Amino acid sequence: MDNEKTFDEITEEIVELVADKQYIKARDLLLKNNEVDIAEILEEILEEVDAERTVILFRMLPKDVAVEVFSYLPPDDQKAIINVITDKEINYIIEEMDFDDMIDVLEELPANLVDKILEQTPKDERKQINTFLNYPEDCAGTLMTPDYIMLKMGWTVREAMVHIKEVGMDSETIYTCYVKDAGRRLKGIVSLRTLVISEDDVLIKDLMHTDFVSVNVYDDREEVSEAFTKYGFLAIPVVDNENRLVGIITVDDIFDVIEEETTEDIERMAGVIDSSDEEYLDMSVWKHVKNRLPWLFILMCSYIITGGIIAGFENELSKVICLVAYMPMLMGTGGNSGAQSATLIIRGLSVGDIDLKDAGKVLWKEARVSFFIGLALSILNFLRIIYIEHNGVGVALTVCIAMIATIVAAKVLGGMLPLLAKKIGIDPALMASPMIASLTDMISVVTYFLLASVILSI
Amino acid sequence: MDNEKTFDEITEEIVELVADKQYIKARDLLLKNNEVDIAEILEEILEEVDAERTVILFRMLPKDVAVEVFSYLPPDDQKAIINVITDKEINYIIEEMDFDDMIDVLEELPANLVDKILEQTPKDERKQINTFLNYPEDCAGTLMTPDYIMLKMGWTVREAMVHIKEVGMDSETIYTCYVKDAGRRLKGIVSLRTLVISEDDVLIKDLMHTDFVSVNVYDDREEVSEAFTKYGFLAIPVVDNENRLVGIITVDDIFDVIEEETTEDIERMAGVIDSSDEEYLDMSVWKHVKNRLPWLFILMCSYIITGGIIAGFENELSKVICLVAYMPMLMGTGGNSGAQSATLIIRGLSVGDIDLKDAGKVLWKEARVSFFIGLALSILNFLRIIYIEHNGVGVALTVCIAMIATIVAAKVLGGMLPLLAKKIGIDPALMASPMIASLTDMISVVTYFLLASVILSI
Repeated sequence: MDNEKTFDEITEEIVELVADKQYIKARDLLLKNNEVDIAEILEEILEEVDAERTVILFRMLPKDVAVEVFSYLPPDDQKAIINVITDKEINYIIEEMDFDDMIDVLEELPANLVDKILEQTPKDERKQINTFLNYPEDCAGTLMTPDYIMLKMGWTVREAMVHIKEVGMDSETIYTCYVKDAGRRLKGIVSLRTLVISEDDVLIKDLMHTDFVSVNVYDDREEVSEAFTKYGFLAIPVVDNENRLVGIITVDDIFDVIEEETTEDIERMAGVIDSSDEEYLDMSVWKHVKNRLPWLFILMCSYIITGGIIAGFENELSKVICLVAYMPMLMGTGGNSGAQSATLIIRGLSVGDIDLKDAGKVLWKEARVSFFIGLALSILNFLRIIYIEHNGVGVALTVCIAMIATIVAAKVLGGMLPLLAKKIGIDPALMASPMIASLTDMISVVTYFLLASVILSI
Repeated sequence: MDNEKTFDEITEEIVELVADKQYIKARDLLLKNNEVDIAEILEEILEEVDAERTVILFRMLPKDVAVEVFSYLPPDDQKAIINVITDKEINYIIEEMDFDDMIDVLEELPANLVDKILEQTPKDERKQINTFLNYPEDCAGTLMTPDYIMLKMGWTVREAMVHIKEVGMDSETIYTCYVKDAGRRLKGIVSLRTLVISEDDVLIKDLMHTDFVSVNVYDDREEVSEAFTKYGFLAIPVVDNENRLVGIITVDDIFDVIEEETTEDIERMAGVIDSSDEEYLDMSVWKHVKNRLPWLFILMCSYIITGGIIAGFENELSKVICLVAYMPMLMGTGGNSGAQSATLIIRGLSVGDIDLKDAGKVLWKEARVSFFIGLALSILNFLRIIYIEHNGVGVALTVCIAMIATIVAAKVLGGMLPLLAKKIGIDPALMASPMIASLTDMISVVTYFLLASVILSI
């Protein structure tokens, strides 16, 4: 970050070196970077040059670096490299990867390649890999690793440290260690920090915490990320239904979960069906259509109802045609007002600031906020309609009262519908802008024309 | 999480015990929970009972637990407790808190109380606290702590471990240690894991990584959270403009940053002005109005233009009044289509899946997606208008061609405007649903009426 050359410049330089087949220079420059950055540079070389030359460079990396870099590559690039390297190299990489990264790679590879790889692994490990591959999508099991440090209750700190020194290399983390009983049930956890600052002869059972927090292997990964966010842990133990420790999840794997869950929420709020992990640019036109058409269709049906309501007022409308010109403003402002409220409530529910029991408070707050906003915008419009457009007090009153009613209805609906959704077990994110706007349109149109027929006596 | 009683039941039980003044029982039950949960239960007691009884219970907690619990309480509850406890107790808590938590508390307290607290602290520390309190809002400096472990290059692993054992208790983390040169410039980092698995006589300078990633103390906290997300670190060193190490940021403090930054983005996408850290329910009606009115007003102005366009077509409109009934569908579907595209692009930009250089690909993808979606919805509408509503082929053609044009325009605008915003240095989140919808409305109305005057010869 504090290099004189920017990261983009370094990347470009390496890409050019590889294109020129100056691999030694490219490698030396490459190795000055963090493994995450090396992976990013390789991605660029794969895109700008070709897989063959990328692999030549990849093979020249020290083996431990190569394995780590490979684990940071996106699935498509991992496949591109696997297609070029030998089976022996594939096996080496898979063997040496962290267990959870290996599972991620295997999940993305075609089944015949996975079978070929699994043939090479020892039977015990193969069984474990298969268990991990079979956890349902999006559950805690798919995030965890079985490579954790286990200590015994009767050990002293000295014995524990010797053990950690021996097995620490192959463990996902050594900073949190786990203590099980004879039945493989998790009894306590102890941090390396506690071990390091404690005296050598103290027993593990006197140091361990027994009020630890764990997650179930079938818990949704969103619950796992909430636990990390809430408690600030570096790792969380994962237990099965019999409370036996089956793995741990480390904090570095949670950032991706948070990012993906947030994307899912935001997309859902815009009426886009979950695009799973696929990136926008990688997704086919057909899949984009499939993800977006359903909600557009459902919402269109509500607009058809609104259209029907308008058709019912055609007679009145034809008498005061200038009313039509104010419809976009009424409907648009209603939709925007409702979207603001819905967004605030959906986000508040999602981060835990707002709860179902706050419904009364939300209602009261939205009612007041919407009234004042409606009043402010109405006064401006009243003046505009009278003094600039000269459309008369009747039209001005109709528009302004409809405006206040629309904004109040929109904000109250926007505040209440996400809470109602949560109450009946639907994702509140579905009660966002598009849904609220289409409902508001109906209310807005009905109010507007009813007011018009009363105030303008048409 | 696997208790037989749910957390809510335990909370309720403790609240009742405190209301009954059964403090000993309440404390024993309370202490079975994690400190984060204890803080949450105290929040509930503060809300349901009163500050006096909460403080009685709070005083009965072991001192180290009390300090940690205090740091997890929300600012308002911290103030409520500070108002009841003695100055001596306040000083004790502030003294014993982690440095970064202490700064957070001091930032929220009234200035006279801060001065009183600072009077009690030694001069050196007071100076440091003042430096930290003066970092600009939202910069890396406000997240960091000066309590990290420093090792010397010439030390052996054994010497380092002895040092860590001595000072480990007061350090924010011991899992990443830092090595500086004589000019206080950061030279390398070494993880406790490396120390633990290395032999006792190896020198620190032979173990330390020199290709570390650091952030500047004035970097925006969003950049800090991006670095954590990208690299999966447990801690990141913070340096000043002369590259001197001034503090570290640990991963547990990043979750809040991610949550707040996401909230800011989502609210901005809905046309709500940043509500900073204040929660929805705590914010006054007036502040809610102030955060929401400006965008509603700006967008209203665009609707006024749309209204003006319609007014210009009043003559044509009065001849085929049934056209009005299709306006909500056209405008609404246009708005929804544009919102989908804008959301996908804004999110893609934010997580780094999409870049400015992808503008061409986005344009081509949105053009095709929107055409197919427009075609599908138009065919349905064509049939409906002809066979159900019997409004004739002319009206059907007008509505359907306008529909395709609106959806294509909406999706292309929705795809391009966030990229344009990014290009010219505006937050792409502002080019979301409300903005796109209001622009789409204009295009939609103009296309619709121009088509109508040609096709229907009015």
